Amino acid sequence: MRFNELAQQRRSIHHFTDEPVTDEELETVLEAARWAPSAGNAQPTRFLVISDELNREMVWESTTGIEGVTPQNFIKKAPVHIIVLADTRAYKGKQSSLFMERFLFQDTSAATMNLLLAVSDTGLGACWVGMFRDEALRESFNIPTTLKPVAIIPVGHTESKEKPRPRKPLTELVYHESLSG
Amino acid sequence: MRFNELAQQRRSIHHFTDEPVTDEELETVLEAARWAPSAGNAQPTRFLVISDELNREMVWESTTGIEGVTPQNFIKKAPVHIIVLADTRAYKGKQSSLFMERFLFQDTSAATMNLLLAVSDTGLGACWVGMFRDEALRESFNIPTTLKPVAIIPVGHTESKEKPRPRKPLTELVYHESLSG
Repeated sequence: MRFNELAQQRRSIHHFTDEPVTDEELETVLEAARWAPSAGNAQPTRFLVISDELNREMVWESTTGIEGVTPQNFIKKAPVHIIVLADTRAYKGKQSSLFMERFLFQDTSAATMNLLLAVSDTGLGACWVGMFRDEALRESFNIPTTLKPVAIIPVGHTESKEKPRPRKPLTELVYHESLSG
Repeated sequence: MRFNELAQQRRSIHHFTDEPVTDEELETVLEAARWAPSAGNAQPTRFLVISDELNREMVWESTTGIEGVTPQNFIKKAPVHIIVLADTRAYKGKQSSLFMERFLFQDTSAATMNLLLAVSDTGLGACWVGMFRDEALRESFNIPTTLKPVAIIPVGHTESKEKPRPRKPLTELVYHESLSG
């Protein structure tokens, strides 16, 4: 399959079956994430894999109690949650404030995108969840202040036949040479 | 090719040949970027494509004059520069401050990662350049304050045989159930 086909077929999945995710499947998707680029090859991305049912309940709880945001109830059904973390110690010695303000999110997002693509290529489903209470995750899983939670990725098998959501056409997204005229 | 093979083969390219990038190649890589996910499907990512030689010189200039950072001279040789922009107007009506602080970078980085993978799949080379002076780009290309430059991606053909830089093993990156113990 050419990459563009994969990129277009991949979509956010909100329905999971009871089929477990195997260790081999998990390793495949984490392996893809590992090869993502990072600023200065600092490799700040870490992955906290949550399979235990009570622990998954605590992950779900971290998405509750946010004003104006509906709790992500669908994630309860996913047999595995991958919490993507940024290890800020990876930037030790880097002078530019861009590392903490920008590259931390860029590097971990590049790894997350690779992970989501590998999930889809492996026939699994996943969704990028960005709304959660950092502190709730920290307390539940003893995450030290040097690690910043940046995303929750519920992963599982799916029978969902939903099509990808529509996207704006390139004509609305691309400029040439200048923003003027 | 399975996705994991592509993810592992892709690498940052710093040497480009004189061969031009065709419109079809450009459309392929932008098309892949267009299908990346975004928070609430807000689709904030925009692309400013720079091919004109004098304009490319100005892109290079934006990477100069940053204390402690070597100018990215290699990008001068790339026939196309894609400046990735975040259109903050896409988040209009979103209450959470997470959109501007986190999702802006996450959404545009997901699109950038898709773009880099499509570049590699198409047989081209590219590099994610994150160190530049925003204001220099704004002035050179009339970028309004509603659009935030987040990355410069030089793209071109390459004969580089460099191998990917080494990555930490998964055993150093993955935790299970908790950070304690």
